[in-house]
Amino acid sequence: MDTLESNFLAALDQVLGKPSPFIPLHEPEFGGREREFLNHCIDSTFVSSVGQYVDQFEAQLAEFTGAKAAIAVVNGTAALHIALLLAGVTPGDEVLVPALSFVATANAVAHCGAIPHFVDSEFSTLGLDPLALQNYLERIAQVTPQGLINKLTQRRIAAIIPMHTYGHPVSLGPLLHVAKHYQLPVIEDAAESLGSTYQGTHTGTLGLAGILSFNGNKIITTGGGGAILTNHQDLANQAKHLTTTAKQPHRWEFFHDHVGWNYRLPNLNAALGCAQLMELPMFLEKKRQLAQAYQDIFKEIEGINFIHAPENCLSNYWLNTIQLTQPSREIRDRLLTIANDAGFQCRPTWTLLHRLPMYTHCPRAPLPVAEQLEVSLINLPSSPKLVTGLRD
Amino acid sequence: MDTLESNFLAALDQVLGKPSPFIPLHEPEFGGREREFLNHCIDSTFVSSVGQYVDQFEAQLAEFTGAKAAIAVVNGTAALHIALLLAGVTPGDEVLVPALSFVATANAVAHCGAIPHFVDSEFSTLGLDPLALQNYLERIAQVTPQGLINKLTQRRIAAIIPMHTYGHPVSLGPLLHVAKHYQLPVIEDAAESLGSTYQGTHTGTLGLAGILSFNGNKIITTGGGGAILTNHQDLANQAKHLTTTAKQPHRWEFFHDHVGWNYRLPNLNAALGCAQLMELPMFLEKKRQLAQAYQDIFKEIEGINFIHAPENCLSNYWLNTIQLTQPSREIRDRLLTIANDAGFQCRPTWTLLHRLPMYTHCPRAPLPVAEQLEVSLINLPSSPKLVTGLRD
Ligand SMILES: Cc1ncc(COP(=O)(O)O)c(C=O)c1O
Ligand SMILES: Cc1ncc(COP(=O)(O)O)c(C=O)c1O
Repeated sequence: MDTLESNFLAALDQVLGKPSPFIPLHEPEFGGREREFLNHCIDSTFVSSVGQYVDQFEAQLAEFTGAKAAIAVVNGTAALHIALLLAGVTPGDEVLVPALSFVATANAVAHCGAIPHFVDSEFSTLGLDPLALQNYLERIAQVTPQGLINKLTQRRIAAIIPMHTYGHPVSLGPLLHVAKHYQLPVIEDAAESLGSTYQGTHTGTLGLAGILSFNGNKIITTGGGGAILTNHQDLANQAKHLTTTAKQPHRWEFFHDHVGWNYRLPNLNAALGCAQLMELPMFLEKKRQLAQAYQDIFKEIEGINFIHAPENCLSNYWLNTIQLTQPSREIRDRLLTIANDAGFQCRPTWTLLHRLPMYTHCPRAPLPVAEQLEVSLINLPSSPKLVTGLRD
Repeated sequence: MDTLESNFLAALDQVLGKPSPFIPLHEPEFGGREREFLNHCIDSTFVSSVGQYVDQFEAQLAEFTGAKAAIAVVNGTAALHIALLLAGVTPGDEVLVPALSFVATANAVAHCGAIPHFVDSEFSTLGLDPLALQNYLERIAQVTPQGLINKLTQRRIAAIIPMHTYGHPVSLGPLLHVAKHYQLPVIEDAAESLGSTYQGTHTGTLGLAGILSFNGNKIITTGGGGAILTNHQDLANQAKHLTTTAKQPHRWEFFHDHVGWNYRLPNLNAALGCAQLMELPMFLEKKRQLAQAYQDIFKEIEGINFIHAPENCLSNYWLNTIQLTQPSREIRDRLLTIANDAGFQCRPTWTLLHRLPMYTHCPRAPLPVAEQLEVSLINLPSSPKLVTGLRD
């Protein structure tokens, strides 16, 4: 083992203790009223498409994030799909997406029949780089009465999806500025950033709409689930309508006025969500403590940077992340091997989306930063339970 | 009140007793191990995309239906979407769909970018009419090396979706024969027919694939949920892959080889499903008893036919249904009004799909039977709990 490897392992050991036998990347925690709410949901017999927990979950999400409205749906991918449709994305359009993201960001674009168009990230946020974006659009795009046109493909660029990577807010201010200049609707992928704020405002509430995920690995979970956030009441109403088969209300008639989806979150899953939301402030506190512990340790280790929250931002530190100062797939994989062998579940970042076979033919900007990040980022175990004692 | 109205109300009264104050159309029942399995699922912390309940639910569904494989997904609509994709449906294709169905049958076709093409039903099953289908295809379609072509639109007809209406099996034998002749893959929409058999074989297992729904109003519920059934192991594998983001297995690498979906059923919902499946034989027995009670009463009432299981079929009698011998929207709506006012939740059948604004421009066969059924069918309260005493 070389120095970097042994230092890395020692750091994990110091923060997390010895795995016995295994410390997962992110484990959910159900120490609150989860069982009670689930049992009550069963007692009520309302487990499915309507019920008090869905209403309550939506109201509490809106309150917590400060969004005017939250619409609960089956998962983050579905939320993104509907948000894009409501932003006006139509088949054959292009949508700007970070090459460094989970595959769902691009899949939701494909689900609209549209084409992801990959753009670069910046080191400080791990998210879209506003300056690189502006330079790129200046070169390849043109504002026309038909919208923003990609001069190389002649297709319309219909929207942009900034994503808050591992909970760290993207440079939203400058990004919104560029988007406005190019008349691009902004859909924030805040799947990973519940509890993260940009200059005091919750992520996912600054663009036209934003989305959250409550998958099992997220900061709170509903089993599977997601939400659309928006400050536009008419968009919220349309989102609710489209995600619930677009049925018009009637005492008994079945009349649906649009192609709709069955994307509503079952009341059962919302019951779990309501209990988890009550724990969220405690999870956030623990996760920020854990991040601080990692940061203190990795400060001392040469060759490794701990990624901290961007300036003027609060991060939920969903997944704690280190960056190798010398990008190298070989070193990265060696560190991953020794950590995982030792029982610390660690992971690399995602394969850049333009390398996946279904997206290799999609348009893309130069991606120098994303390409470096791809071989230098490692996610560390980040469950709130790894910090103990706060409750006692 | 005229004679028909008072007879109808008296019949409901006799079978169901006085509502106090309201008898829903179909209510779920949680008298088994639902709470236990949900609590155990929480204890395990595996509430999300993988877990023992998902595996168990899939295995038990396969066993119960006799399908080689069952793939659990978020709902019936998602199941249909993926089954159609795997049947080879591509954007711009047409898919034959009964005009008399729940909107999800057509929506799933639209979700593939394909076009529903509406065909007629028969009185005896309320489902697709094989003879009418054959005559229609003879007239408008042509088998070519490129597949079955609609001569009027020049589009490919890529699949057919027979649906087992309210649990009554469609005439599958003759339908499969016609489908085979025209080289049409058959995807059975068995959303409503868990527990129903056609000549001894479970519905949803006779075509290329079939789908189930476990929505709150179905015979068993997972909150929201569905499944794909198939006897083709490779199709099952592909279905699992596409519904779980098409990720290739790897110790840490994120590599996805197709546009995929997040359509997996959470383990939490599968836990509910496993408990409900244990109750299914009892639900089926009760529902068949309730159907018998309705049938005995409505035999005596002129102007009303009770819809019973087609010959050589077992129906789950998901929703008990009567048919007015004189089709009339006015009479139907008067009966619906008095029943619902009295606290018996009754509903008409669906608005025929070709009348919905997003589907008015779709191709369609003559629909004389569906049009009569539309104004003559009424669903009656059908919860298993309406029959009591079986457990004691
Ligand atoms: C960045 C990002 N976008 C979208 C999603 C999709 O959310 P879900 O898994 O709930 O569909 C996720 C989480 O999985 C994600 O991390
Ligand atoms: C005939 C039919 N097809 C499809 C579906 C769709 O199932 P789900 O509601 O689970 O999406 C349903 C049930 O709602 C249905 O009745």
